[in-house]
Amino acid sequence: MNIELNIKTLIVKKPLKLDCGKVIKDFPIAYETFGSLNEKKDNAILAFHALTGDQFVAGVNPVTKKDGWWSYAVGPGKAIDTNKYFVICSNVIGGCMGSYGPSHINPDTKQIFGANFPVITINDMVNAQYNLLEHFGIKRLFSVVGGSMGGMQVLQFVSNFPNKAKTAIPIACTSSHSAQNIALNELGRQAITADINWSEGNYTIEKKNPNKGLAVARMAAHITYLSKKGLQEKFGRKLQERDDLKFGFDADFQIESYLRYQGSVFVDRFDANSYLYITRAMDYFDLGKQFNDNLSDAFKKTKTKFFIISFTSDWLYPTQENKDIVIALNAIGADVGFVEIETDKGHDSFLLDIPDFLNAFKNFLDKSY
Amino acid sequence: MNIELNIKTLIVKKPLKLDCGKVIKDFPIAYETFGSLNEKKDNAILAFHALTGDQFVAGVNPVTKKDGWWSYAVGPGKAIDTNKYFVICSNVIGGCMGSYGPSHINPDTKQIFGANFPVITINDMVNAQYNLLEHFGIKRLFSVVGGSMGGMQVLQFVSNFPNKAKTAIPIACTSSHSAQNIALNELGRQAITADINWSEGNYTIEKKNPNKGLAVARMAAHITYLSKKGLQEKFGRKLQERDDLKFGFDADFQIESYLRYQGSVFVDRFDANSYLYITRAMDYFDLGKQFNDNLSDAFKKTKTKFFIISFTSDWLYPTQENKDIVIALNAIGADVGFVEIETDKGHDSFLLDIPDFLNAFKNFLDKSY
Repeated sequence: MNIELNIKTLIVKKPLKLDCGKVIKDFPIAYETFGSLNEKKDNAILAFHALTGDQFVAGVNPVTKKDGWWSYAVGPGKAIDTNKYFVICSNVIGGCMGSYGPSHINPDTKQIFGANFPVITINDMVNAQYNLLEHFGIKRLFSVVGGSMGGMQVLQFVSNFPNKAKTAIPIACTSSHSAQNIALNELGRQAITADINWSEGNYTIEKKNPNKGLAVARMAAHITYLSKKGLQEKFGRKLQERDDLKFGFDADFQIESYLRYQGSVFVDRFDANSYLYITRAMDYFDLGKQFNDNLSDAFKKTKTKFFIISFTSDWLYPTQENKDIVIALNAIGADVGFVEIETDKGHDSFLLDIPDFLNAFKNFLDKSY
Repeated sequence: MNIELNIKTLIVKKPLKLDCGKVIKDFPIAYETFGSLNEKKDNAILAFHALTGDQFVAGVNPVTKKDGWWSYAVGPGKAIDTNKYFVICSNVIGGCMGSYGPSHINPDTKQIFGANFPVITINDMVNAQYNLLEHFGIKRLFSVVGGSMGGMQVLQFVSNFPNKAKTAIPIACTSSHSAQNIALNELGRQAITADINWSEGNYTIEKKNPNKGLAVARMAAHITYLSKKGLQEKFGRKLQERDDLKFGFDADFQIESYLRYQGSVFVDRFDANSYLYITRAMDYFDLGKQFNDNLSDAFKKTKTKFFIISFTSDWLYPTQENKDIVIALNAIGADVGFVEIETDKGHDSFLLDIPDFLNAFKNFLDKSY
């Protein structure tokens, strides 16, 4: 993957101390904006992306040439109405779309970081992105929103900056990565590092390409984004352009072909080391632990109004884990709404055109503005 | 993996036509027996193993030096009481513990088969193993039993040989591999073939070793054998011999260390090509389709008494898929019992010391004898 684009970038001059202890400064945050910031600067929404997302939340992604990852939710008249709101989305640090990440040059060695990039956390990501508020002169955001890892960032943001967002919408997420979540991420990391071309993280310098391992990691993850029932309804045992089984190892079944395709297109837009670092940040996420295992304490200073959304068929971050956040907020009398959306689309639901979800999302925002 | 053992083997002289069309003969079936066949030869139980199992159902496995895979269920006084019953278990064709498989010599080329081994099916496995009845002079088995892929073989056996088993116990299985099942197996196959040392299946000839890919496949599968809740209770976010996170990619969490261990020990006892072929056989399994999508017709000629067992937390072959078999049997008035065992242990439950399961298993057998 080699992206050469004119990407909007904020160079953060102010030093940031990462959770690992390392202090970084003069680091880039690549971002995009959608809609217009109003005069009172009270209509800004900071959207956080998920594991493999980027700043191209809407419009056309210049790398994939496809619609932005949240095009169903963000745009004129949509849930996040860009006629009304000013949306900021930035690539997380550790990412591969322009923000400070493992494919950048290490200023100390003048070499690409690779596996020498510091291990970062969700907290680090959020603290880095906070600089965008200052950049735009925004005193308080109208909302912080995000699904999956984006939802984790929402939770961490409100905890870190209790007076900096009027509302918060964590979607299909968790306050703490479960053993199964960690296991699935570790599987992806093992697939990448098992690829001989990963070369201990130095594949770019050595002009190698761990695409096979990265594709396997993506396939593993992709299965977890869909529900068993959804897969059965969409693919079942349908054959791929053939009348009968071929007694070989080509893709007999449509689901095999689909998975292989998902793996192959992913490697054109994502960096293997970024996959390692971002999954690590997710696994390290345990917001309650930052407050002596009392999740409520993470939010005790905030007046932010929460709206939490989960999906019935999401087995990666099931409703119960979303409800646990609601319970923690209720315990301190915080302002919190919650809805569980009925769907067979699994964890991926937050990215899809699901009217019940998008309507609830839109209503909450418009009502709160 | 290089196993040199004195393994009991039946060389099947009679030609067997495989589903792919190829006819094989003079092929080996490696087997073990436990207990004694009585004079009337009416106390024999044919146990079928799962994906990574073998003929060493009880006693000590000579390769792993550990207890056989079904030691909790098979032995003196156990569910399958070897003081009473004569247990036969053989390595499936396609396997790597002595039966006709991809690590054998292709008689046509005098080279190791590798990826030139024919794609086999559950039907082929069962037809191959049927030869053991003739070998032991058994007219009718007391029972056919197995969990997971072993259960699929139970279903296929009764369908193929409706008068050859008095009872049948399919456990934690399905009559048709779902899209999610196929996706997960395809993931494992992709992990193996992504390993450059797989060498298009010729790793043995080329003295290479696709252990990294095979280990990733095993880790992926292992996650599916356990339930989310079971993983959380056993591992949660417990750290591996450290007080705090290390901000690196070593195994910080116990679950990571556990998965890596599962991958590393697996490659010492299993063959990568066998993994490809056996998962393919599972994916091809669709018993109903063999009878114009009427699963009941698969069993309409049989008087075999069924007992079907499922586990609440098994998400690989959930209770509903086991119940679908019960429904198909009920529809033709077959003799069928069913029990769903409450447990957090996931699909792996059929291998574990779960008293409710083992008691139900034992009671059914002893009552039916």
